[in-house]
Amino acid sequence: MNKNREFGYQAWLQPGPKLDFPGFQPAGEKGFAYDELVRGLHRIGCRDIDTMINLALCEDIGPQAYKITGSIDGITIRGGDERGLLYGVYGFLSRLRRGQTSFDIFDKPAASRRILNHWDNITGRIERGYSGKSLFFKDGQIGYDLERLKDYARLLASIGINEISFNNVNVCSESAKLITDYLPDTKRIAEIFRPFGIKIIVAIHFESPVLMGGLSTADPLDPDVAEWWAKTAANVYKEIPDLAGFVVKADSEFRAGPMSLGRTQADGANLIARAVKPHGGMCYWRCFVYNCMQDWRDTETDRPKAAYDYFYPLDGHFDDNVMLQIKHGPSDFQVREPNSPLLGAMEKTPQMLELQVTQEYTGQQKDLYALAVQWEEIFDHPITDIIATRDLIGDKIDAVVAVANAGDDSNWTGHLLAQANTYAFGRMAWDPSLTALQVIEEWAELTFANYPKAIRPIIEMVLESRGVYEKYNAPLGIGWMVNISHHYGPSVDGYEYMKWGTYHRADTKAIGVDRTTAGTGYTAQYHPYVQAMYENKETCPEEILLYFHRLPYDYKLRSGQTLLQYIYDTHFEGVEDVEGFIATWESLKEDLPEEAYTSVKERLQMQLANAKEWRDVVNSYFYRKTGIADAKGRKIYE
Amino acid sequence: MNKNREFGYQAWLQPGPKLDFPGFQPAGEKGFAYDELVRGLHRIGCRDIDTMINLALCEDIGPQAYKITGSIDGITIRGGDERGLLYGVYGFLSRLRRGQTSFDIFDKPAASRRILNHWDNITGRIERGYSGKSLFFKDGQIGYDLERLKDYARLLASIGINEISFNNVNVCSESAKLITDYLPDTKRIAEIFRPFGIKIIVAIHFESPVLMGGLSTADPLDPDVAEWWAKTAANVYKEIPDLAGFVVKADSEFRAGPMSLGRTQADGANLIARAVKPHGGMCYWRCFVYNCMQDWRDTETDRPKAAYDYFYPLDGHFDDNVMLQIKHGPSDFQVREPNSPLLGAMEKTPQMLELQVTQEYTGQQKDLYALAVQWEEIFDHPITDIIATRDLIGDKIDAVVAVANAGDDSNWTGHLLAQANTYAFGRMAWDPSLTALQVIEEWAELTFANYPKAIRPIIEMVLESRGVYEKYNAPLGIGWMVNISHHYGPSVDGYEYMKWGTYHRADTKAIGVDRTTAGTGYTAQYHPYVQAMYENKETCPEEILLYFHRLPYDYKLRSGQTLLQYIYDTHFEGVEDVEGFIATWESLKEDLPEEAYTSVKERLQMQLANAKEWRDVVNSYFYRKTGIADAKGRKIYE
Repeated sequence: MNKNREFGYQAWLQPGPKLDFPGFQPAGEKGFAYDELVRGLHRIGCRDIDTMINLALCEDIGPQAYKITGSIDGITIRGGDERGLLYGVYGFLSRLRRGQTSFDIFDKPAASRRILNHWDNITGRIERGYSGKSLFFKDGQIGYDLERLKDYARLLASIGINEISFNNVNVCSESAKLITDYLPDTKRIAEIFRPFGIKIIVAIHFESPVLMGGLSTADPLDPDVAEWWAKTAANVYKEIPDLAGFVVKADSEFRAGPMSLGRTQADGANLIARAVKPHGGMCYWRCFVYNCMQDWRDTETDRPKAAYDYFYPLDGHFDDNVMLQIKHGPSDFQVREPNSPLLGAMEKTPQMLELQVTQEYTGQQKDLYALAVQWEEIFDHPITDIIATRDLIGDKIDAVVAVANAGDDSNWTGHLLAQANTYAFGRMAWDPSLTALQVIEEWAELTFANYPKAIRPIIEMVLESRGVYEKYNAPLGIGWMVNISHHYGPSVDGYEYMKWGTYHRADTKAIGVDRTTAGTGYTAQYHPYVQAMYENKETCPEEILLYFHRLPYDYKLRSGQTLLQYIYDTHFEGVEDVEGFIATWESLKEDLPEEAYTSVKERLQMQLANAKEWRDVVNSYFYRKTGIADAKGRKIYE
Repeated sequence: MNKNREFGYQAWLQPGPKLDFPGFQPAGEKGFAYDELVRGLHRIGCRDIDTMINLALCEDIGPQAYKITGSIDGITIRGGDERGLLYGVYGFLSRLRRGQTSFDIFDKPAASRRILNHWDNITGRIERGYSGKSLFFKDGQIGYDLERLKDYARLLASIGINEISFNNVNVCSESAKLITDYLPDTKRIAEIFRPFGIKIIVAIHFESPVLMGGLSTADPLDPDVAEWWAKTAANVYKEIPDLAGFVVKADSEFRAGPMSLGRTQADGANLIARAVKPHGGMCYWRCFVYNCMQDWRDTETDRPKAAYDYFYPLDGHFDDNVMLQIKHGPSDFQVREPNSPLLGAMEKTPQMLELQVTQEYTGQQKDLYALAVQWEEIFDHPITDIIATRDLIGDKIDAVVAVANAGDDSNWTGHLLAQANTYAFGRMAWDPSLTALQVIEEWAELTFANYPKAIRPIIEMVLESRGVYEKYNAPLGIGWMVNISHHYGPSVDGYEYMKWGTYHRADTKAIGVDRTTAGTGYTAQYHPYVQAMYENKETCPEEILLYFHRLPYDYKLRSGQTLLQYIYDTHFEGVEDVEGFIATWESLKEDLPEEAYTSVKERLQMQLANAKEWRDVVNSYFYRKTGIADAKGRKIYE
């Protein structure tokens, strides 16, 4: 691989020289931001000395914030701190690349913490990774390409990411040692990312005091356990003083945690929080806690209720350097979910919004899927009648985190266009008021700057992609219906009789689980305004109807279609839409670099096969279950 | 583990001294049979010198055959050869243990070859193994407990097994080396089993000439390939002159083979056969060849037709030292299948009947399942109006082979009572005219000789177990409906939309695939007599009705039940029957060694949970699909 030549490797930091600008002369504050400016100008082909660009630190602006002022006659970039200056440089370069020449800009991140969690195993395999092997680990130890890791850090910093964890939250006994035996390796990673303003988080194993400390328990109320954590954290901070903190997955999917020891989630989180507190560190505590051994016959237990039930009563019991990491939806990164009722519900506990950039249930970087579109909806989701989730970002929700989608594939994300998701995550965590259209435009203009004819069709295709994927997948928010374990492709009953608490309960007449107060009572976890909206079939947004209501197949949707006919129609349409994507893409053959054209075309063909499989399996499933044919007489396999 | 003390470890070779016989004095032909006689008499507690037992070789009796004559006044055991003499000794000891004191017996095996195939991986894991790790391999190499392996050999020899393969037919690149780099190891295994009259077979990798020979192809018609095999076989036979031969799984489930190189199955089999021919070796060529990439939408392709379609036209094209290894049914070791139409169909090609002792689809040694009952039916299965499959054993079908069920669990088979399956396989391969009742009686009388009160209840329970398991599993021969990959527990649609060619196509009105000449035409592969029987719903044995016919749920069975009500009834009954097993077993608590009582009870509890899961999933599935309630108003989960 000649990295510097490969289109995909450059992502949204494509080289020039295609710009019609004069050159610039950097000046002022020397340091990493300065170096990055020089490098960036060089990259986009502005080499002559014409315009002065002055870099300056200016505390008044505030941390991480920046100002850019001036024009072709002279430009000033001011940063509230070093990170702010760096973001100012990247923000300037990005705007310049997109043709802006006059600046009067103040920008600052909404959320203080914009985090990527890598689910990289120490073996080098990435859990839920669809773009090659780990960038951080190889064969059971830290192992990386230094230049590549710096390039990755630059990509992340350029979109405002300021913290990353690099080991899987499913910590194994080997990766648990990243804070003990392998601490020198962890330190090396921290050093690589530090200049880019990116702090390191380590995912820790809750049972570390037993695994590594020789203690007989990991009980959070045991003084020896607390002491072990305090001593271990002190060691870590001695080597990595700016470590952001620890992230913990506990009491989740067969992992041990405080509950398995008879303690509360607060006991567990505070244990870790107190260990890192003296060093300014955080405890990021995941709320993905539910009964994963449910009996499918049990219709009382309702998995979406779990996180709220476990955590809401503990509000006020968490130390101030605990942040609760809450998945955006109450299920698990499905194509369509309501927001978690826990988001915004707790008055006294800082919260983090957890998204997923890696496309576990959303096409696995074979199928095109614009997460930005979904995230815009998530930010829009009401907390009350007057507050949207977006309004809490930077306030109660001062961190936005996502599971990363990058691996060692030459283009980072497997599907070239999945780079749009990485890009959008950084940008929308920085500024949740950005629309999907805005960030996808930004991304496409940067990535395809040298291929201008392709930009508009690609923007349209990417923006459409979430809706298309949803059409051929599980209908109306019902979720799952995927092949077990690997989560790609359809299996309508795949999880139906399993222990994971994910049931559609389709029979010959109806489908869905009643989650209203007449049913499992899940809706009661929301603010009354939101509850009322979801409670009523008439006011419930139709695209999520089957998340909340059990409905007969002949239920009439607002379009006049029956529920069943809607399922058939959308599944036929989904395939046609993918065929449309392929036609669009083929029309761009001459307008794109060959490598990009070919690799995306291959993925689109895989997506078409997947869409057809979904169409036929879902349609056959419901036809076999209802005996009702498609009103339009299209082919459904018997 | 104190092997010599453990009840389970002794299996059907339990020690005395509980016999009420005088002692014996062995005499005559010295050798391994003599030693085994002394050892056996010692084991069952006959130590005094009273009765002379004379051992003699006598060629006229024929190979592997034996005669036992005489009584308490003096006994003669004659063997047609050394193996015959050894079988005579074991036969004598077995009968003596069961109380016989007067003998006038001539016995000889029906099938010359009675074979176990171990699916043991070189890692030590056993594919489809449910009783621990491999007895032959450990951590990527040959690794065994010598004394234990001898004890295993004795168990096998005592029931007449005379050939074994010990590496998985899914040969990997490491285990492929058992005939090259690791030949000294293979030789050691052969030496351990040789005294017991058991010859070794090696499972080979069809692409060995490429993997290990440095050739560019494994094409069976390439002279270099033939030469590589000839040379390699000569090397093997130099070290192991009595090697039985090679077993080959080719062109099957993603494994390479002659078809993938544009050649026929005969080309492939003859290649291997010619390499071993000069040394008296055999090529055992598996016929488990089918399209495992079928599209579920394709209703023309019918997997059960595959083996016949591929192999029948090649009759006459195989060398005389090729034997075709044919699974008993056209599917894959399901709880109920018709016999393969290939069995007995070929006039010129020696055939092997392949059974499965390991309980892949039949309860995985958690659930009790008497394979003998099923095998009796398989032997009964008609080839024509006047010939049963049993009649061909020792004639066209001169080998009976099974996938082994033993591992390094202390009782060999995980479930103690699964020893009955190992025992029954040896005995029924030796004498297919034995009924399941006869062999289970023999086994129980030998195994529980010291616990006589338990014998009769155990015999009844074991004999009943196949029917019970069938009740709560896939109904009326439809097969599958299991969880994918691991094959334990129910998933009615688990394989329904997959590529394996195993579909029930249940819809709201009907279930099954029409395999008559009006449907896929599968029935036409049988002799006209058998075809006519299966072709017609009225004459098709009802227990296999859904293998051949697609039927509406309201189809009336001979009992007057509808098909649907039959499904409900059997699934409720299956659970009740398992509860009955538990009650029976608990009544034996005082009559059994504690270890045996406890371990079987644990398994029965697992079986009960499994039976309930099958009952509820299958009943709910069909209730949800039909909307028709149980006529008896029992609980079906909605």
